Amino acid sequence: MSRVICFGEIMMRLSPPGFQRFVQANSFGLCFGGGEANVSVSLADFGVDAAFVTRLPDNPLGQSAVNELRRYGVDTGDIARGGDRIGIYFLEKGASQRPSKVIYDRKNSSFAQAKPGDFDWKKVFGGADWFHFTGITPALGESVAQLTMEAAAAAKKHGLKVSCDLNYRKNLWSPEKARGVMTELMQYVDICIANEEDAEKVFGIKAENTDVADGKLDEDGYAKVAAVLAYRFKFEKVAITLRRSISASDNQWSAILLDRSGVLKSKSYPIRIVDRVGGGDSFSAGLIFGLLNGYCSQEALDFAVAASCLKHSVEGDFNHITAEEARALMEGDGSGRVQR
Amino acid sequence: MSRVICFGEIMMRLSPPGFQRFVQANSFGLCFGGGEANVSVSLADFGVDAAFVTRLPDNPLGQSAVNELRRYGVDTGDIARGGDRIGIYFLEKGASQRPSKVIYDRKNSSFAQAKPGDFDWKKVFGGADWFHFTGITPALGESVAQLTMEAAAAAKKHGLKVSCDLNYRKNLWSPEKARGVMTELMQYVDICIANEEDAEKVFGIKAENTDVADGKLDEDGYAKVAAVLAYRFKFEKVAITLRRSISASDNQWSAILLDRSGVLKSKSYPIRIVDRVGGGDSFSAGLIFGLLNGYCSQEALDFAVAASCLKHSVEGDFNHITAEEARALMEGDGSGRVQR
Amino acid sequence: MSRVICFGEIMMRLSPPGFQRFVQANSFGLCFGGGEANVSVSLADFGVDAAFVTRLPDNPLGQSAVNELRRYGVDTGDIARGGDRIGIYFLEKGASQRPSKVIYDRKNSSFAQAKPGDFDWKKVFGGADWFHFTGITPALGESVAQLTMEAAAAAKKHGLKVSCDLNYRKNLWSPEKARGVMTELMQYVDICIANEEDAEKVFGIKAENTDVADGKLDEDGYAKVAAVLAYRFKFEKVAITLRRSISASDNQWSAILLDRSGVLKSKSYPIRIVDRVGGGDSFSAGLIFGLLNGYCSQEALDFAVAASCLKHSVEGDFNHITAEEARALMEGDGSGRVQR
Amino acid sequence: MSRVICFGEIMMRLSPPGFQRFVQANSFGLCFGGGEANVSVSLADFGVDAAFVTRLPDNPLGQSAVNELRRYGVDTGDIARGGDRIGIYFLEKGASQRPSKVIYDRKNSSFAQAKPGDFDWKKVFGGADWFHFTGITPALGESVAQLTMEAAAAAKKHGLKVSCDLNYRKNLWSPEKARGVMTELMQYVDICIANEEDAEKVFGIKAENTDVADGKLDEDGYAKVAAVLAYRFKFEKVAITLRRSISASDNQWSAILLDRSGVLKSKSYPIRIVDRVGGGDSFSAGLIFGLLNGYCSQEALDFAVAASCLKHSVEGDFNHITAEEARALMEGDGSGRVQR
Amino acid sequence: MSRVICFGEIMMRLSPPGFQRFVQANSFGLCFGGGEANVSVSLADFGVDAAFVTRLPDNPLGQSAVNELRRYGVDTGDIARGGDRIGIYFLEKGASQRPSKVIYDRKNSSFAQAKPGDFDWKKVFGGADWFHFTGITPALGESVAQLTMEAAAAAKKHGLKVSCDLNYRKNLWSPEKARGVMTELMQYVDICIANEEDAEKVFGIKAENTDVADGKLDEDGYAKVAAVLAYRFKFEKVAITLRRSISASDNQWSAILLDRSGVLKSKSYPIRIVDRVGGGDSFSAGLIFGLLNGYCSQEALDFAVAASCLKHSVEGDFNHITAEEARALMEGDGSGRVQR
Amino acid sequence: MSRVICFGEIMMRLSPPGFQRFVQANSFGLCFGGGEANVSVSLADFGVDAAFVTRLPDNPLGQSAVNELRRYGVDTGDIARGGDRIGIYFLEKGASQRPSKVIYDRKNSSFAQAKPGDFDWKKVFGGADWFHFTGITPALGESVAQLTMEAAAAAKKHGLKVSCDLNYRKNLWSPEKARGVMTELMQYVDICIANEEDAEKVFGIKAENTDVADGKLDEDGYAKVAAVLAYRFKFEKVAITLRRSISASDNQWSAILLDRSGVLKSKSYPIRIVDRVGGGDSFSAGLIFGLLNGYCSQEALDFAVAASCLKHSVEGDFNHITAEEARALMEGDGSGRVQR
Repeated sequence: MSRVICFGEIMMRLSPPGFQRFVQANSFGLCFGGGEANVSVSLADFGVDAAFVTRLPDNPLGQSAVNELRRYGVDTGDIARGGDRIGIYFLEKGASQRPSKVIYDRKNSSFAQAKPGDFDWKKVFGGADWFHFTGITPALGESVAQLTMEAAAAAKKHGLKVSCDLNYRKNLWSPEKARGVMTELMQYVDICIANEEDAEKVFGIKAENTDVADGKLDEDGYAKVAAVLAYRFKFEKVAITLRRSISASDNQWSAILLDRSGVLKSKSYPIRIVDRVGGGDSFSAGLIFGLLNGYCSQEALDFAVAASCLKHSVEGDFNHITAEEARALMEGDGSGRVQR
Repeated sequence: MSRVICFGEIMMRLSPPGFQRFVQANSFGLCFGGGEANVSVSLADFGVDAAFVTRLPDNPLGQSAVNELRRYGVDTGDIARGGDRIGIYFLEKGASQRPSKVIYDRKNSSFAQAKPGDFDWKKVFGGADWFHFTGITPALGESVAQLTMEAAAAAKKHGLKVSCDLNYRKNLWSPEKARGVMTELMQYVDICIANEEDAEKVFGIKAENTDVADGKLDEDGYAKVAAVLAYRFKFEKVAITLRRSISASDNQWSAILLDRSGVLKSKSYPIRIVDRVGGGDSFSAGLIFGLLNGYCSQEALDFAVAASCLKHSVEGDFNHITAEEARALMEGDGSGRVQR
Repeated sequence: MSRVICFGEIMMRLSPPGFQRFVQANSFGLCFGGGEANVSVSLADFGVDAAFVTRLPDNPLGQSAVNELRRYGVDTGDIARGGDRIGIYFLEKGASQRPSKVIYDRKNSSFAQAKPGDFDWKKVFGGADWFHFTGITPALGESVAQLTMEAAAAAKKHGLKVSCDLNYRKNLWSPEKARGVMTELMQYVDICIANEEDAEKVFGIKAENTDVADGKLDEDGYAKVAAVLAYRFKFEKVAITLRRSISASDNQWSAILLDRSGVLKSKSYPIRIVDRVGGGDSFSAGLIFGLLNGYCSQEALDFAVAASCLKHSVEGDFNHITAEEARALMEGDGSGRVQR
Repeated sequence: MSRVICFGEIMMRLSPPGFQRFVQANSFGLCFGGGEANVSVSLADFGVDAAFVTRLPDNPLGQSAVNELRRYGVDTGDIARGGDRIGIYFLEKGASQRPSKVIYDRKNSSFAQAKPGDFDWKKVFGGADWFHFTGITPALGESVAQLTMEAAAAAKKHGLKVSCDLNYRKNLWSPEKARGVMTELMQYVDICIANEEDAEKVFGIKAENTDVADGKLDEDGYAKVAAVLAYRFKFEKVAITLRRSISASDNQWSAILLDRSGVLKSKSYPIRIVDRVGGGDSFSAGLIFGLLNGYCSQEALDFAVAASCLKHSVEGDFNHITAEEARALMEGDGSGRVQR
Repeated sequence: MSRVICFGEIMMRLSPPGFQRFVQANSFGLCFGGGEANVSVSLADFGVDAAFVTRLPDNPLGQSAVNELRRYGVDTGDIARGGDRIGIYFLEKGASQRPSKVIYDRKNSSFAQAKPGDFDWKKVFGGADWFHFTGITPALGESVAQLTMEAAAAAKKHGLKVSCDLNYRKNLWSPEKARGVMTELMQYVDICIANEEDAEKVFGIKAENTDVADGKLDEDGYAKVAAVLAYRFKFEKVAITLRRSISASDNQWSAILLDRSGVLKSKSYPIRIVDRVGGGDSFSAGLIFGLLNGYCSQEALDFAVAASCLKHSVEGDFNHITAEEARALMEGDGSGRVQR
Repeated sequence: MSRVICFGEIMMRLSPPGFQRFVQANSFGLCFGGGEANVSVSLADFGVDAAFVTRLPDNPLGQSAVNELRRYGVDTGDIARGGDRIGIYFLEKGASQRPSKVIYDRKNSSFAQAKPGDFDWKKVFGGADWFHFTGITPALGESVAQLTMEAAAAAKKHGLKVSCDLNYRKNLWSPEKARGVMTELMQYVDICIANEEDAEKVFGIKAENTDVADGKLDEDGYAKVAAVLAYRFKFEKVAITLRRSISASDNQWSAILLDRSGVLKSKSYPIRIVDRVGGGDSFSAGLIFGLLNGYCSQEALDFAVAASCLKHSVEGDFNHITAEEARALMEGDGSGRVQR
């Protein structure tokens, strides 16, 4: 069984019930999530030996995050404990024309306070095959950016395949800051993953004929974006997910994958949304799973898109979809008929 | 008031809240359901004197099933008590491309353990007008199949009209086994009800130009299926419900009805699904209600399709729709405007 | 900051969870609502100094209604306390072809028992800019109709702008009764608001080429209705909201506004409904806000339609949407993309 | 099987979750209750053929009340349907020194609007053995008092045993008014049931050495009260329940029973309260059950006290305790050890 | 009506349902609380014109805190908006021998970031009668300590009565640090309130014959503590609450009050705990209310102890008890008998 | 870190909310439990390397059981997958005089269907220090009894310490059957644990001066029972837990421990019960922990009693108490004061 290491922050996610707005809430549903943690859980659900590396406070809330990862089979043995607090994000679920709203309260989290020396990379990467991180992690501050650099370099040195989801977050850093740090990190990356906005926001590479706010996405425009990325950073593969947001309730979902032989396109799925947070992460997990298991590029892409399509029907950040379920959709059964 | 006897199993249904997957659940919503029980409750909601006959354990869980039937006005006076356990089924509600998932835990239930002699058919059918059962009941084991045969024969002998919903369940028996038992039972049946898959699965009668998994259903193909069924088993009427499954969230719903004068078609309804379990049963109840009340075939079909269309908007197995509500839709008001 | 006075009843609203029917309910969600109360809360959410005037019992349930208004910033200082009970309405949420259902239990409420002298209109209207009421209030009985007349006359005398939402409710009075009372009230009204049915039900002014039950609404027909209303009652402006009800789950929503320069039309929004109660009230609030803030007629109309479109995604009667959110939609971002 | 007829009002009961106060509530738990309805359900749970007679509105809320009675096996065949509304009571559960609080909203209910002629007493009492009512019913208004008189007289005429729980409610009528009406009704009563306050409030018969508010109850004082009652109204038996209220969380519970041979005392139970509403009604049901089943006076008293002791551990107005469970406690097992 | 100003922090409180431990939680109940906020709400519930002054972030979570205060009638007009986040505390409710557990996550809150100049004390104290703060506020950091000093000085200058609840929190500062800051603040304080631990922790004044951990509290020992405090800081009055903690489920609650005439003792209440957080704050509110309303010292003490006794039966930090309810208990009705 | 192997069944536990009776339930809370599983989780919570060995169905419900064990850190690597179903038990929580009620539905579970060969004992016990099982496991059927024998013999052979909790369950086997099987198993046992009933039920060794049903337990009587057990089966140690059941809400809890030096007694704790299921298992875990960590007999006993006392305040079967918390209680802090 292949072993994948994910490094990043896991936060407590608090959401009002149903479609209540924040100002109406009298309780919060509690789950946990974060870009790389979501990838690790999805991989574990697929049967991969996935480990998640982070830093969490040594209190029952930090323990609950560890427990939630263990529950779904993620190896938490290299999680450092200490610091002040677990990062929190509040999620208000949107509907129809009303967008979902996120309030981050992640500053000064135990992970954001992590420092070089908190992790023993040699031990972490021993026996591992793949390292995954996202652009959120280096955005959390100088120290964490430094740790990410250390980790990526160590992973490369240990011979792991390295994937990165660009995942630009405007409330964490500016495009200028992001470009500097991410450019340096890209030297270690083999597989680059992005969504319809990231390449432009981070590297200034804009897709032609596209207006994200209007939901107009041109696949050929993104093929060029992928090619520019691959050329500039010598990536082995570049995947770009394409979300056409019709409303907060309905999206259209597809992706493209560039490899040495050219650009491949996936099927496009019309989605009734249950929970779209973690959609991109579930794509990353699907792609890593496909590539680790020797799928050809088209299969890996199709699997990743099917898995992430299904994520949108699952509550919470984590994608609780088995590899069999993703394959069933990828092979064509999207009719949603009751299975009994 | 007409009296209808339904015979079969009622199970405890346990479902995670909302769209949670089984592995996420920390609680289960509890309701009760089962093919023939669903028909009896729907009939009672229409104002019919409906009785449900089954066997339940003599413990508070069995009592809760009895209570739920009584709550909605079903006569439970002929329910036998005894045996080990109430059958259970677990339902995970699907959405978009993710199908609903059912896990049955009904083996060795009090009903599956029922034996000839447990029911006094003469008393049961005294003063009754109609007997309804489904293909699920004889599939529960030799002994229950024998009981079903006894019941159908007794009903016929007492002059009741007999209806059967073929309702093939692949996890209960093989097509071969089903064909043998069901063929024998068909001699007692006047009104045969099937869905888009049953005739093929049970009797090997395939609809032309149809691919159920793809959602392509050809009404003319099913008209032929109905005719073959009617011819082979000398049915008075054959009804076939047609579900085009666009996704777990959206279905298209209609039916056809064959009587001596030919094949009638219903309106087709686009449905946003709240809970589709029991959809077919609510059609059976609607059809029985219409025929018992002297509706012409087209009216009975339209009523049955309208009632079962509305079922998809009701939580649980039971169809809590009044005859007035079904008639309002059948007569054209499907706009869903607030009633105040 | 402008000050708006709303006068009417606020009721306790009790709803079964999710899509449960009344006969399935084991608990009720509790919120509060009522035509004019909804307008006052929406205005307060927009930052307006909104006051709500009513009469409530002097018990903890009446207090809870006061508290809910205060919670969202509405001035409750002129609410009279006394009488027997708070009005209640029970709401069963519909889906797909099944309409929502309302059961009113508002007879003999403290407000319906209100009598001339219960309110000091001079104090109420002192320093205020706008008075709003709906056709529900005078329908609650002779005494309340008399109070409404008093209030409207006093408002006019104090120089306030007066708006009225016709809001015909067939279970409260007959069209004949309504026409008499409302005709008399119209002399005080500057801004008349109606939905696609009100003008016909109250004043017998029917839109051409329109069948509300079928969802066929002709905008030009309604332009003529607006013109007739304006001409007959010398209104400064007439706004008509147009709801095309495709099903209980999906509506199409738009409005027209007649001012001295002619008839303006809004964008039409396709809506996935979370809760449509209070949709019209949120339009009134949006229109009042726009006009109070010096928006031109087209802007005021567009703002009102955007705000009320968003209301349909908010649970409860109240529209918890900020002016910024309504403006964002009005200016074009209806993609529902996550805001983080 | 003996048949018992209970006549009175059943209300919708709405309670905030847990120990929330009314002003904190965002939802209400829903159940149904009312003095005589509670008795009928408890009797049905004991296996008695119990019928409940009332009047309920012909809407889904009235239907839900019928359904809840049917659910627990009560015969609802003589319930009249019509009128405006179902009575409601709001219950805030107390704890420690904070008392539970009830807000009634039962005026103008369908039952309070009932009129002579609404019930066919001959049909109701045909084949019945026992009639039970409480002092709440005649307190609901002139018309209902008249109906109660009719019913009691008819029951007597049909040879039924008649029991009455005095159940004085100060918010429904004055002691003077109560005394007049109740005195007249007592002529039909065989078994009189009262709590520690009723005899004084209704008939001015005060127990010596007792201060209810202080929790000081003197059994001998109550023995004299029982004797005076029996002497004045020629009762066959008089039972008085004695609640020593230590706090809203802890009560001490016992009763005395006067028959021709003298005064019998029960064991006294210390109770941790889950829900004390309906405690007295469950005593009435226990006493009726015991007497119907030929228990001697001491046994009937002990059974009634045990059954009603257990009621305090059951949520809602209804006492869901089987006769076996009450007998087990009466015979001594109050240790509360897990039964498995 | 008297006007009371409270200054401090209001936090979001998140608690697992019922008695779940943190590691079991899948949702959190949400309410708001904080020493001085609790006092302001309790005073508003008593009918006092209470204002709460704090600083909250300008996002929906900060708005929800404002809304919750407004809901219960607290004046929020002087609350500053800005900064990063609302403080949070997590509460796990204990039972029996298992203590409740609090995890604070309040560092870097908007209030902790407040700076001199954020509040216009002249405006705040204009027209006010009383100023209340607790020892928690100056413990939040240098800047907030400075603000507290400013506020107390300004209040004194404006002629307000000043009360302070010492409220020592060991996780916020050391005894040494506390003693320095609090000593300086005491010059402005008229009424000093403390619990059984504060005087020792903050000022080193230990009660004789007392072991808090053992639940042994000697009233005479505390009388001396009060006297030493009053003498040292020239307080007008000193009140000390005495909690004998038998277990997390049962406490004994009383208080003493020292005024110029000597030491007064209250009744001692045995309490079954629903929620003990805010118990001390509800005592402060009761005492302030009594003194503002001209109660004599014994009455004020008795009222404060009764009100705070009742607080332990109310969910959340806030004491939703009316003055009438507190008086009823103070005057002797602690039997918890249902009020209907 | 020591490694402990527990072998037995883990069941799905379904409970109505709060104090609802089964016949009132509309939902079930879901958790997992079983004698040996409870021990393994409690040990993992103490920081021990605990493994649980069982057999579970290969479906999402079986997976959820695995997940719940992993969540709390139990090693699930040796759990066999297969068979028909997960065992279920339904728990109705009692209060006051009403006992908790358990309905088992565990027949034909995957574990009960387990067969020799399903587990590789050599692998299971490699590197382990302790083996624990209870009398429930061999009671599940011939095949499982055989497996238990295999396991105990193998554990002994691998040099593990073996503990057994007698845990007699009358609904699983007769005393005669139990005696035969258990006698044979005792040859492998070093540490025998029993409750106040087990020794009599299984081995016919009755405590003098004791009536369990009455709550009268004589410690000296149990000292003799322990001595007889130790003598008969050559146990190294015998521990007996003593539960005085005052009511379903209140228990008194203590234990005795016999070792070579004599009989030791623990402190006795009065307990307000939150959830008493798993109380005995938490004692076993505490004892194993103490003995593994070199505590002297008295300390081990005190730790075990403190840990299991605290269990009664924790919802669910599992004891989520840390070793620090148990030690704090054992060292004397039972006052339940808030920890902040």
